[in-house]
Amino acid sequence: MNTVPLNDLTRLCIHTITTKPWSIEEAAKNFSASGVKGITVWRDALSGRNIKRTGEMLRQHNLSVVSLCRGGFFAWREPAKRQAAIDDNRRAVDEAFELGTNLIVLVCGADPAQSLEDSRKQIQEGISLVLPLAESAGIKLAIEPLHPMYADTRSAINTLTQANTMAEALNSPWTGVAVDVYHVWWDPDLENEIKRCGRNNNLFAFHVSDWKSPTLDLLNDRGLMGEGCIPLKMIRSFVEAAGFQGFIEVEIFSNEYWKLDQSEFLKKIISAFKTYV
Amino acid sequence: MNTVPLNDLTRLCIHTITTKPWSIEEAAKNFSASGVKGITVWRDALSGRNIKRTGEMLRQHNLSVVSLCRGGFFAWREPAKRQAAIDDNRRAVDEAFELGTNLIVLVCGADPAQSLEDSRKQIQEGISLVLPLAESAGIKLAIEPLHPMYADTRSAINTLTQANTMAEALNSPWTGVAVDVYHVWWDPDLENEIKRCGRNNNLFAFHVSDWKSPTLDLLNDRGLMGEGCIPLKMIRSFVEAAGFQGFIEVEIFSNEYWKLDQSEFLKKIISAFKTYV
Repeated sequence: MNTVPLNDLTRLCIHTITTKPWSIEEAAKNFSASGVKGITVWRDALSGRNIKRTGEMLRQHNLSVVSLCRGGFFAWREPAKRQAAIDDNRRAVDEAFELGTNLIVLVCGADPAQSLEDSRKQIQEGISLVLPLAESAGIKLAIEPLHPMYADTRSAINTLTQANTMAEALNSPWTGVAVDVYHVWWDPDLENEIKRCGRNNNLFAFHVSDWKSPTLDLLNDRGLMGEGCIPLKMIRSFVEAAGFQGFIEVEIFSNEYWKLDQSEFLKKIISAFKTYV
Repeated sequence: MNTVPLNDLTRLCIHTITTKPWSIEEAAKNFSASGVKGITVWRDALSGRNIKRTGEMLRQHNLSVVSLCRGGFFAWREPAKRQAAIDDNRRAVDEAFELGTNLIVLVCGADPAQSLEDSRKQIQEGISLVLPLAESAGIKLAIEPLHPMYADTRSAINTLTQANTMAEALNSPWTGVAVDVYHVWWDPDLENEIKRCGRNNNLFAFHVSDWKSPTLDLLNDRGLMGEGCIPLKMIRSFVEAAGFQGFIEVEIFSNEYWKLDQSEFLKKIISAFKTYV
C-alpha cells in the first residue's frame, strides 16, 4: 500500500461531535493548541451563536472549516415533511456560507413507512431542489453512504455504489460523495467504487474511526482508529490512489469517549491518527 | 406481488432459539399443538440429549426437522482454530444425520484480526473440506449471508451476491444459500440475486423476522414480522418467483420476546405469520 505516514497534523480534521462535551470555542482552542488544522462543524455546535463570527473565530485559531454536518433527511412519506427537509437544507446552505465552509455532508434519510426505492427517489429530488442555491453559494453537497444498519431511518443510500450512482445522476460539480470508513469498510466493491468516485471528481470527504468488537450500541459505540477491524491504511491508500489529498476527518460518536477528559481523548486521537491511519 | 396469503400453517417453521426459554421438548409439544409443521433445531437445544431419539420425538409431534443451526465459523487467523472449526462442522454433519434433517445452515465466520478476503478464502476452503462428508450423509450446506453489521466476527459473507458466488464456486448440489430477510432486506441487488440463486437451484432456506426502529441491540432485538420495515411480502414474492416453496422459518433473537410467556409469543408468531409474511 502506497500511503505516506501521517507524521504531522496538516491533514487532521476533527468533528465537533467527536469531542461533544466541549463547546465549539473550547474545541477550537484545544484543537488549535494541539496542532490540529481542520474542524468539521456539526450544526448543533452553532446553536445560539452568530455563525459568521463563529467561522471567524475558527479561522483565527488557524482551523480550516472543512465541512458542515449535516444536511439531508430528505426521505419522508409525508410531502409536508419533505418540503420541511428541503427548507432546512436550504438553511444549511446559508449556514455553511456564513460559516465559511464550502461543503455540506448529507445524511440522506430513510422513512421506514415506505420502500427504500421511494426514499431514494425523494433523496435525489430533494438534493436537486437544493442544488441551485448550493451552487450559487459555492457550497458542495456530499452524499454519504451510511452503513446498512441505518437503512431503516437514517439513509436509504447504503453503499458507495448507490452514492456514486446518485452523484453521477445529479451530474453537477457541486454534488459528490463522502467516504466514511465506518459505513463502507465491509463492502467488497469498495476499492472499485472509490476509484469510480475519484475518476468522476466526486470524492469530496474522507472520514475515519474504527469498528469495535463487540459494538455495544448501533449509534454511539464507534472506536478510535486502531482499536477495531477496519483496514484504515488500506482504505486511505484507495482514496489517495483515487486522487484525494484533502483532510482526514475524525468522526467518532462514543458514549465511552465522551465520558473521558476530552483533553486526554484529544491526545489519543492525535496518537491514533499518526499510528493507525 | 404474486404471493398467496398464508392462511394455514403448512409452511410455518420456527427455530428453537426463537422460543429459547422452552426446552426442545416443550417447543415440540407447543408448536405441534398449535399446528406448526416445521422446526429448525439449534445445536444448543440438543445439549445432553440423544440426538436420534430427539429427532424421533420431533417427528412424533408431526414436525419436519427443517434444518440444524448452525455450522460455520470457518474463518480464523490461527490454523489450529480453522482445523477445530472443520472438525466441529463434521460433527454437525453427524448430528444433522442423527437428527434426521437434510440441511445445515452456515454462519460462516470472520476474524477481525485478518482481512475479510482472507476470511472468505478460509470459509470456502472450510466448506470444501466438510463437503465430502456432507454429501455422503445426504446433508446440504446453506451459506447464509449475514448483515454487514456482523462482518467483524460473525461472517465475512455479507451480501447474497457473495453467498451466491461462493455457492457457485463450490459447484455442488450440496451447497447453496439461506436467505434471511433480516440480513439482506436493505440490499439493492436483492431481487436479482434471489433470481440468480433460484436459477442455480441454490435457494435452500428462507428465514423471516423484522427490523425494528430503533434497534437497541445488534444481536438480540429482532422484531416480530410486521413490526418493522422489512418488505416481507415482497421478499417472499421474490423467493417464490425463484421457485422456492419450502418452509418459511421464523428466526427471532429478542431479549424482549424471550421475557414473554412463550405461549403468548407463539400466538403472536402465528398471527404475524398469517398477516405480514
